[in-house]
Amino acid sequence: MRLSRYFLPVLKEDPKEAQIVSHRLMLRAGMIRQQAAGIYSWLPLGYKVLRRIEQIVHEEQQRAGHIPLLMPTLQPADLWRESGRYDDYGEEMLRIRDRHKRDLLYGPTNEEMITDIFRSGNISSYKDLPLTLYHIQWKFRDEIRPRFGVMRGREFLMKDGYNFDLTKEDALHAYNRHLVTYLRTYERMGLQAIPMRADGGPIGGDYTHEFLVLADTGESEVFYDSEITDLTFGDRQIDYDSKDQCQAVLEEFTSRYARTDETHDDALFQQVPEARRRVARGIEVGQIFYFGTKYSEPMGATVVTPDGSRVPVHMGSHGIGVSRLLGAIIEASHDDKGIIWPEGVTPFHAGIVNLKQGDSATDSACETIYAELRAAGLDPLYDDRDERAGAKFAGMDLIGLPWRVTVGPRGLANGKVELTNRRSGESEEMSPKDIVARLSSIYAPVLNTAVIDK
Amino acid sequence: MRLSRYFLPVLKEDPKEAQIVSHRLMLRAGMIRQQAAGIYSWLPLGYKVLRRIEQIVHEEQQRAGHIPLLMPTLQPADLWRESGRYDDYGEEMLRIRDRHKRDLLYGPTNEEMITDIFRSGNISSYKDLPLTLYHIQWKFRDEIRPRFGVMRGREFLMKDGYNFDLTKEDALHAYNRHLVTYLRTYERMGLQAIPMRADGGPIGGDYTHEFLVLADTGESEVFYDSEITDLTFGDRQIDYDSKDQCQAVLEEFTSRYARTDETHDDALFQQVPEARRRVARGIEVGQIFYFGTKYSEPMGATVVTPDGSRVPVHMGSHGIGVSRLLGAIIEASHDDKGIIWPEGVTPFHAGIVNLKQGDSATDSACETIYAELRAAGLDPLYDDRDERAGAKFAGMDLIGLPWRVTVGPRGLANGKVELTNRRSGESEEMSPKDIVARLSSIYAPVLNTAVIDK
Repeated sequence: MRLSRYFLPVLKEDPKEAQIVSHRLMLRAGMIRQQAAGIYSWLPLGYKVLRRIEQIVHEEQQRAGHIPLLMPTLQPADLWRESGRYDDYGEEMLRIRDRHKRDLLYGPTNEEMITDIFRSGNISSYKDLPLTLYHIQWKFRDEIRPRFGVMRGREFLMKDGYNFDLTKEDALHAYNRHLVTYLRTYERMGLQAIPMRADGGPIGGDYTHEFLVLADTGESEVFYDSEITDLTFGDRQIDYDSKDQCQAVLEEFTSRYARTDETHDDALFQQVPEARRRVARGIEVGQIFYFGTKYSEPMGATVVTPDGSRVPVHMGSHGIGVSRLLGAIIEASHDDKGIIWPEGVTPFHAGIVNLKQGDSATDSACETIYAELRAAGLDPLYDDRDERAGAKFAGMDLIGLPWRVTVGPRGLANGKVELTNRRSGESEEMSPKDIVARLSSIYAPVLNTAVIDK
Repeated sequence: MRLSRYFLPVLKEDPKEAQIVSHRLMLRAGMIRQQAAGIYSWLPLGYKVLRRIEQIVHEEQQRAGHIPLLMPTLQPADLWRESGRYDDYGEEMLRIRDRHKRDLLYGPTNEEMITDIFRSGNISSYKDLPLTLYHIQWKFRDEIRPRFGVMRGREFLMKDGYNFDLTKEDALHAYNRHLVTYLRTYERMGLQAIPMRADGGPIGGDYTHEFLVLADTGESEVFYDSEITDLTFGDRQIDYDSKDQCQAVLEEFTSRYARTDETHDDALFQQVPEARRRVARGIEVGQIFYFGTKYSEPMGATVVTPDGSRVPVHMGSHGIGVSRLLGAIIEASHDDKGIIWPEGVTPFHAGIVNLKQGDSATDSACETIYAELRAAGLDPLYDDRDERAGAKFAGMDLIGLPWRVTVGPRGLANGKVELTNRRSGESEEMSPKDIVARLSSIYAPVLNTAVIDK
């Protein structure tokens, strides 16, 4: 993309309404615009990151054999009356009445609807299980005091997935399998998200973990054994059908003490050696639940077992806060100049800064690098505006592209351009050809992520 | 995907509520499930087609340099009070009140919001134009009598794009450019959509064309010169910045008589030679508008001109009915056995039917073909269930994959499997290796569609 043709309304001043850094930087970098309290437009730059995050979530869910579908944003109230949650949910549920005076609601979650889809889907036999269905869809929670930008918005994008299994044991495998997919999902986004024992809340369930990203602005106080931050999932090959392999990952990542204030047990925490005890703050970016037959039983979602009897299926639900992740990533990765995007989610792979727009040699070198990066499958942003170098650098630092290519007449005289790393600030001179090769190799792991379903 | 792991709840019986073939086939093929009047879940097969259609729309918009963003589903009423449309819109607008008694609405369209984004986006100079922003988002129209499945639903997915230009002449170029992108978009979906002179309606504007797909079940009566159906856009290389090239395409595709009943002029129609006069029915799948300063003027969306004065920008809006397109494609492409997907939008590229599940040679041949098709970048559906051949064939015909690979012990004894075309019903025997080569070459034009923005 050429910046001269893009729509990137950056702000020079810090917006007054933003209390936390991610909100401030998303507004300043022209990523979002508030349209009503807690309701945002995703401007082109923000939308691009949102799509990258969504794509990673899709790929990791499908890698584990989970099947995508899409449920609507609006749901009939009757479905929630069946489960008993229509009256329980309180004022956070946005209730709507249509022209025929029928009660609808803007879905805050989808346990009822997915159970309805399952029970009406001609699945009669245990042989059709296991099954996990998921979607990524806009949801609404009418927060009394929306704030912190997309971190606590009202209209928000979430991935929610639901497993259907014959037995508790199978459903716990689904639970573990989701934990594995989530570890891998967050790491691809450059995040360390720690699974912590959590509370069931209104969805219910005894087995539940939240995934928390450590950040000073987090809404939860967290207590953990510092050994846990040494764990990485990395590029392991996992057979998602293997109960043993998934169970082993769960044990590896949840055997050390790690809890939020909701479930914190100080006596247990004191058993962690003092030097490893940490108290910090965290941002919740996902949660997994096993809740058994809580919905399948009242709603009649059953299958026939091998011995011919009919039993309600065992279910769980598993969520990732897709839109909130943008805020969490920025909270975890920024400096005083702006955002620092991890390579896995950056809106553009590299920025090209032309130091002397209008100079034919400089323009032509920029055009060549731009074209060659694109031919290599990369997505560069070329700042081709007639602006001072300082303004161009500040803009690139603010929007946080991980790599910057600087092209000026002086370097070109020696056949060199400059490659700068946003995080370290370190620069290196090299030929335009080497720039393309270097960036291609940096991004190879990000680009080679074709989904392999089973 | 292996069918044994998929969720494809096909119906054996014709659903009573479906009055038209696309609605009936989408229900029977397990593509959608109605959750409330005019509100659907997109089951895995339907969701897959929806995503393919969405992807084509994105690619063709970005090819023309249009910039994606995402506006929320809910909008504040105040924005619509500014333009005066809040009271005008009538009962089709779904009005919502939140817990703080603030008025919201579920957006039926986005002229006001995009104008608000533009005016607040620091665009002060004519040099920042031209600009076209678009999004693909769920919208709601509270139809009094929703019917025909996704063809006239209440919650529906639409692409809407908005151009911002300095002059009427520039805005008419944007209009023409959109017409070019739409022709190419529909053709990639295997559709012939004819631009017809239309009526401005509530969005307003003198320049507007609708795109209609001919089908007996269409909601509009259409009148046209039969020469128009001989036109195809094909694989032309267009410079979307060239006013002349885009204008030439507009003239080529709109110079012959083609109108809906809303704008039909019988005197003009009689000037078409009798043998070429056609009266038929059509389904509207898109519309383009130029409406000048209708929104920019009252809402204060202005730029500074070269001579230093400040003027409201010239705008237009341009829509494609994304979810409705699934219905339109099926109406235009089916037979009495089921759907016939065009290659550009088919949910799976080919179906593999194993005639003797459990036979080790047959299973192994199927596995090899399945793996090799996937390695070639194709997306096959392998019917690996223990079912009769007849049921497997009927299922594949119903869901409408364009190509079927049939693998049985008899053919394998001669080293052959069978490739069947869904539309013609013609079959050909060939080696498994040739199957992969053939399907790769059939789908090469569909898969090689990387987006080239400017």
